[in-house]
Amino acid sequence: MRCAILGGAGFLGQHIGRALAHAGWDVWCVDRAAPPPPGNAPWFAGALRADCFDLQSWWGAVAGVELIVHLASSTVPATASQDPMHDVQTNLLGTLRLLQDLRRQAARPRVLFASSGGAVYGRPQSVPLSETHPTLPISAYGATKLAIEHHLHIEEAQHGLPCRILRLSNPYGEWQPPHGVQGVIAVFAHRALHGLPLDVYGDGSVVRDFIYAADVGRAFAAAAHHAGPQRVFNVGGGAGHSVNDIIHSLERLLGHAVQRRVLPARPFDPPVNVLDIRRAREELRWQPTMALEDGLAQAVAWLRTVP
Amino acid sequence: MRCAILGGAGFLGQHIGRALAHAGWDVWCVDRAAPPPPGNAPWFAGALRADCFDLQSWWGAVAGVELIVHLASSTVPATASQDPMHDVQTNLLGTLRLLQDLRRQAARPRVLFASSGGAVYGRPQSVPLSETHPTLPISAYGATKLAIEHHLHIEEAQHGLPCRILRLSNPYGEWQPPHGVQGVIAVFAHRALHGLPLDVYGDGSVVRDFIYAADVGRAFAAAAHHAGPQRVFNVGGGAGHSVNDIIHSLERLLGHAVQRRVLPARPFDPPVNVLDIRRAREELRWQPTMALEDGLAQAVAWLRTVP
Repeated sequence: MRCAILGGAGFLGQHIGRALAHAGWDVWCVDRAAPPPPGNAPWFAGALRADCFDLQSWWGAVAGVELIVHLASSTVPATASQDPMHDVQTNLLGTLRLLQDLRRQAARPRVLFASSGGAVYGRPQSVPLSETHPTLPISAYGATKLAIEHHLHIEEAQHGLPCRILRLSNPYGEWQPPHGVQGVIAVFAHRALHGLPLDVYGDGSVVRDFIYAADVGRAFAAAAHHAGPQRVFNVGGGAGHSVNDIIHSLERLLGHAVQRRVLPARPFDPPVNVLDIRRAREELRWQPTMALEDGLAQAVAWLRTVP
Repeated sequence: MRCAILGGAGFLGQHIGRALAHAGWDVWCVDRAAPPPPGNAPWFAGALRADCFDLQSWWGAVAGVELIVHLASSTVPATASQDPMHDVQTNLLGTLRLLQDLRRQAARPRVLFASSGGAVYGRPQSVPLSETHPTLPISAYGATKLAIEHHLHIEEAQHGLPCRILRLSNPYGEWQPPHGVQGVIAVFAHRALHGLPLDVYGDGSVVRDFIYAADVGRAFAAAAHHAGPQRVFNVGGGAGHSVNDIIHSLERLLGHAVQRRVLPARPFDPPVNVLDIRRAREELRWQPTMALEDGLAQAVAWLRTVP
C-alpha cells in the first residue's frame, strides 16, 4: 500500500503522513518545498521535491501509488482574497491538470482532498454545520475549494477516479508555523511565550472549531479505506471554543496573564462556526480524541523549541 | 440608461437586447463575434466587436454603462466536459479579470449574469427545483457557472458591485441556431422541417423545462431594476415537458409524423428537471407569457427561413 501526500512537507502533511504510516501505508512526501529532515519525519518512506500538479514530475518516481492525499495549495484565505485569479490559476487549474493526467494512467488511485469546513459553507444558517448545509462561500479561497470538490465528484462519475473530501475545521498542533497568517493557536501561543500582545478582533467571543492535527491524520487514514456511498466528511473537534477560551487556556498553561491588543471586529467573521461531525463518526468510525487543553499543551511544548 | 450585453450577438443576446430596449435602455452589443446586421436587430444602439472579458477593449467606447448583462461564454456543456481547463481558463478567469478591472472604475454598474438552472443544481433531489435546492453540479459547465456565481456574490460583498444571477432553464425561440449541440427544440424542428429523423435518447420520457427566449428577455429587464435582498432567480417556463411532448407538438404543427432514431438512454440525463419560478414571480413580478405550442410555432416559422 503506497500513498503520495501532495503538499506533504507542511504542518498537516507531517501529521497525516505519520497517521498513514502508522496505518501501514508506505508514505511518500511530494512537495515543491524541501521535505522535513528525515530525523524529524521518519515515517516518510521517501520524499520528492516536485510540482505536485505536474504528474509527470513525480508519478514515475513513486511507482504504484494507490492513494493520493491532496493538500497542495499555493494560497491561504488572505492571499486568495488578494489575488483570486492566482488562486484559480494555481489551485483549481493545477488540480484539473492533475486529474486530466491521471486519466492517462491505468491506475485509479483514491484521492483524498483537504477542503475547508471554515470556507465552503459561508455564513452559517444553523450550527453545527452538517455536510448538507448550503455551500455559499464568502471568500475566494472557499469558492476555489468548492469548485475543486465539484470537479472531483465529476471526475469520479465520468472517469472512475474514486475520491473522498474532508472538510477540515481549524487544525492546530506541533509543527504549525507560528509566524504565518493562519493558525490562531500557534500565533497566539508563540506570541504569549515571547511576552508579546495578542491581536483580538472585537470582544473575543467569536467561536471556532479547533481540531488537533494528529486527529486530522487519523481521519485521513480512516477515509483511505471508507467503503460507503458518502464522499464528503466534516472533520472537526466536535465543539466550539471562543477566542477568549483559547486565551484563558493559554494563560492557565503558561501560569501568567497575557496582554491583548483589541482591534475592531471584522464584519466578514461569522460569529460562530462549528462543524457537525456525526457523519465522520458513523461512516469513518472516527472521532477526535485530543481534548483542547491537552492539545494546546502539546502545541505549546513544541512552540517552546521555536525561536 | 445605458447597458452593455456581453455576448450580445447570440440568440439570447438578441432577445434580451430587444427586451431591454423596449424597457427604455440604450443597449450596446459587445461580442467577439460579428453583431447581427442592424436591420435584423434594430434595437441595438451600437455594437462593438471585442473580447468581452477585456474591459479596456470596450469600456471606453460604451461610456456610462449602468448595467452589464453577462452572457459571454466560450463553451456549451459538451465542450466544457471535453476540456474543463479551457472552460475555467476562459469563462471563470475571464470573469474574474473583468471584475478586477471593474474595481478600478468609479462606476459600479449592476451585473446580470446568465447562469444555468439545468447545470448548477445537479441531480434533482425534488422537483420543481427552487433556488435553495443544493448545488452539486455534475458537469464542468455547471461547476464553472456556479463558481462565477460565488465570485459575483463575493465581489458585491467586498467591492460593492451589485449583481443579480438568473438561472435559466432551456431557452428556445427564433434566432436559435439549429445546427449546434444545444437547443433541442431548434435542432428537432429544423430536422423535422427537412424530413430528417430526430435522435431520441431512451424512451423520450425525459422531462425538461423550456422557456421562450423573449420571456427570458423580460426577466432580465425586470432584474435590472430589482431592489430586494435576493440575488438568485430561477427563470423557467414553470412546467415540465417531455421530449415526446415536444415531438408530438411538432407533428401537430407540421401536420405530419416525424421519424425518430432511438438511441440508448444517457446515464447523465436526470429523468426530470423543472425549475420553481415562484421567487421570480414574487420578487421580479415576472412570469412567462408564451405557451409552449405558441412559442414552438414562432420558432418553426423562423426556422422555415433557415437553410
